Amino acid sequence: MGDIIAALRLELGADQVLTGAEIGTRYRGDMSGTGTTLPLALIRPRAVAEIATALRLANEAGIAMVPQGGLTGLAGGANPGAGAIALSLERWSGVEEVDAQAGTMTVRAGTPLETAQEAAASAGFLLPLDLGSRGSAQVGGNVATNAGGNRVIRYGMARALVLGLEVVLADGTVLTNLNKMLKNNAGFDLKQLFIGSEGTLGIITRIVFRLRPLPRSTSTAFCAAPDYPSILELLRRAEGELGGPSAFEVMWPDFYRFVTAHPTTKSQPLPPDHGLYVLIEHQGNDAAADPERFETFLGGALEDGLIADAVIARNEKEVQDFWRVREGLALDTLPHLVNFDVSLPMGRIDDFAAACRQKLLARWPAGPESHAAFFGHIGDSNLHICVSVPYRAGEGMHDVDELVYATVRDFEGSVSAEHGIGTLKRDYLGHSRSPAEIAVMRRLKAALDPRGILNPGKVI
Amino acid sequence: MGDIIAALRLELGADQVLTGAEIGTRYRGDMSGTGTTLPLALIRPRAVAEIATALRLANEAGIAMVPQGGLTGLAGGANPGAGAIALSLERWSGVEEVDAQAGTMTVRAGTPLETAQEAAASAGFLLPLDLGSRGSAQVGGNVATNAGGNRVIRYGMARALVLGLEVVLADGTVLTNLNKMLKNNAGFDLKQLFIGSEGTLGIITRIVFRLRPLPRSTSTAFCAAPDYPSILELLRRAEGELGGPSAFEVMWPDFYRFVTAHPTTKSQPLPPDHGLYVLIEHQGNDAAADPERFETFLGGALEDGLIADAVIARNEKEVQDFWRVREGLALDTLPHLVNFDVSLPMGRIDDFAAACRQKLLARWPAGPESHAAFFGHIGDSNLHICVSVPYRAGEGMHDVDELVYATVRDFEGSVSAEHGIGTLKRDYLGHSRSPAEIAVMRRLKAALDPRGILNPGKVI
Repeated sequence: MGDIIAALRLELGADQVLTGAEIGTRYRGDMSGTGTTLPLALIRPRAVAEIATALRLANEAGIAMVPQGGLTGLAGGANPGAGAIALSLERWSGVEEVDAQAGTMTVRAGTPLETAQEAAASAGFLLPLDLGSRGSAQVGGNVATNAGGNRVIRYGMARALVLGLEVVLADGTVLTNLNKMLKNNAGFDLKQLFIGSEGTLGIITRIVFRLRPLPRSTSTAFCAAPDYPSILELLRRAEGELGGPSAFEVMWPDFYRFVTAHPTTKSQPLPPDHGLYVLIEHQGNDAAADPERFETFLGGALEDGLIADAVIARNEKEVQDFWRVREGLALDTLPHLVNFDVSLPMGRIDDFAAACRQKLLARWPAGPESHAAFFGHIGDSNLHICVSVPYRAGEGMHDVDELVYATVRDFEGSVSAEHGIGTLKRDYLGHSRSPAEIAVMRRLKAALDPRGILNPGKVI
Repeated sequence: MGDIIAALRLELGADQVLTGAEIGTRYRGDMSGTGTTLPLALIRPRAVAEIATALRLANEAGIAMVPQGGLTGLAGGANPGAGAIALSLERWSGVEEVDAQAGTMTVRAGTPLETAQEAAASAGFLLPLDLGSRGSAQVGGNVATNAGGNRVIRYGMARALVLGLEVVLADGTVLTNLNKMLKNNAGFDLKQLFIGSEGTLGIITRIVFRLRPLPRSTSTAFCAAPDYPSILELLRRAEGELGGPSAFEVMWPDFYRFVTAHPTTKSQPLPPDHGLYVLIEHQGNDAAADPERFETFLGGALEDGLIADAVIARNEKEVQDFWRVREGLALDTLPHLVNFDVSLPMGRIDDFAAACRQKLLARWPAGPESHAAFFGHIGDSNLHICVSVPYRAGEGMHDVDELVYATVRDFEGSVSAEHGIGTLKRDYLGHSRSPAEIAVMRRLKAALDPRGILNPGKVI
């Protein structure tokens, strides 16, 4: 162990290699709060060549290397195990280029998402990737986890936004393909392997993002719908008539009532007695005509009974109010809250929510201490669930996990929509992927990281 | 050799295994016309289990298996080598499901693209994948080659349209993940490996496509632009003001003059003395308002000098006329025509065309027998080049290849935008991918197909 530290200090410089008390406690893990151990060492390289050197040394020594970005993950993917070296990308930061002709930007992995968004915007472009932790999440982690977020329905997951990638492999080989071309079928598209594999196959160092035009209008409405079939029809219509919403966020009444009754939320856009709620956002390119089209769309939906009521945001404050309801931060005040991020076939999401709620109630009967709140990016088949129940002796989060993930399996859903597998969902990967698939994942891992040094114990 | 044929006949039934003169000459290869040898045998399975059995047997025997779809490829990717067995997917055909709630369709690999498009349309959806050979190309081949086509600028390559995949591996393992969910981060996204790897890592048997709403309006214009910077600005504006064109097809004057002067074309939308030409198509969702918005967009571009002239198609016949010019079939009449499909950084395409033209002229001076025509899906960075020159003794297509691909390398482009590598471009893969990348491709090939039986000699 001492050898690798000494070797890293020699090659990278002593100031880049921290150990023991020099390592801040935040490097123990991500926002899931499940990281418990400090790494053997923390390195914070300032160049790709340094990252390559560090990996080569770790690979030779057979020492685990755990990449860390903004540590905003929710699946334990960046938690270092005991004896592992944490490799923070935080000093390998910055926007290298915005290419206005190609409509691309090239960004270092350690760049905070919001910094990249702002650089794109100041060049007149939209970097469509967006999520709540934009201020601290880093683009390398976003791509390594194939991050989703609020606008996937319009622009796709992180994967859909990446044109080129530079990755350092376990043995220190630097794989550079900073492609800016939309069409490129020259050989296997290797970057796809590294997107969404959570740092287990290589460490992403540079990203070429495809940029989009900045939207010229944003319309936002908060609607109430009588039932789930109406929600599905409303979505279909929004896709046909508006060319697709940029957000379509559904909230079940248990979510809506709890959040809007809580003093931190401060607004209740519609009465709490409706069947379902949906926040619809449409970003368009005709500032003059779009608001009227949006209103016409909602008027038609109201007339046909797909929605029972709707309010359109008249100013930025109301937009923020609507989103604050949807963000549901009030739920964070609940004791030992368990958050789920699953996906399900579109047609079955309401049935899933009902089945899941029923099972939870059967085990932890209704009462002031029992909460299960359902909401999500339904246009992407993505449901979030917040559960807070009064555990009896010997019970814990694991029991809620077992119950919810078993229901996901029964409904042929995915145990991870956008947060990844990390360590927290590893035991449930088999609920959504077959043994044959998991065997192929292991074959790929062995092919690219034969000594198993890259983020070991994560995903598979 | 006889053993494998006997084993296949035993397992699949004798009628499914053709040899010698029973094999039609078309199974020698794809539309590149470079396939010269009949396969050892041709099998045409009717079920995934049969495909799995055939692969298991071939793998045990170490016999090459070459998947064949509609044989419309242009890179020799489906040409069987001597001693290989051709596996035609043509009997494994049909649309299994259109799921209107999920907005997906599940299709067998041997289904012609046009059949799938029609099934989607009759359920009220658009399957956005579209290309000239839609009538005979099969969806399995489309996905295996990550096909592009005319509407990539709006909907992405085949990869962007695939949500789920079933693949048979070299050893006969069936890898089924018929995912319909837009967000699914449960483990490595294995399907990405098989998309675009041209049947070298597995044989695709089923595909889940993401469907889109049918467009409600289509506007088409043929425009002339003074120069390439104006074209780039026009594209940027179309993306901002129209929310993106559905086709943006640029033609250089050498292309336009030859094609519109040829008797088979029968129309010349604009005079032949402009700097560049572009066919712009916009598909929208507001049948009432879109035509006027399109006209306003063109009016603004005309006023600002980005275009010098434009005609808007007033009826379906004119739409067809415009597209017939763009398709440039007149070029097929030229002797020993060499077609290129390359991509280049957006900002450099015109410079590339000039450099390439100059090099061709330097070697084969201008004259009635020398033609080089440039056109392409410029919004996707994709340029096509048609070259017909009078070879001297000892010269041939190879010399044109060398010249063009060397120029692509100099401009940091890709030797294949949408047609793939197959056999024809294999020698040039290193022009666009690094030795480190090609080494990783070989590692993946060895991990998934250790005996090297799947479409050997293709891509890498």
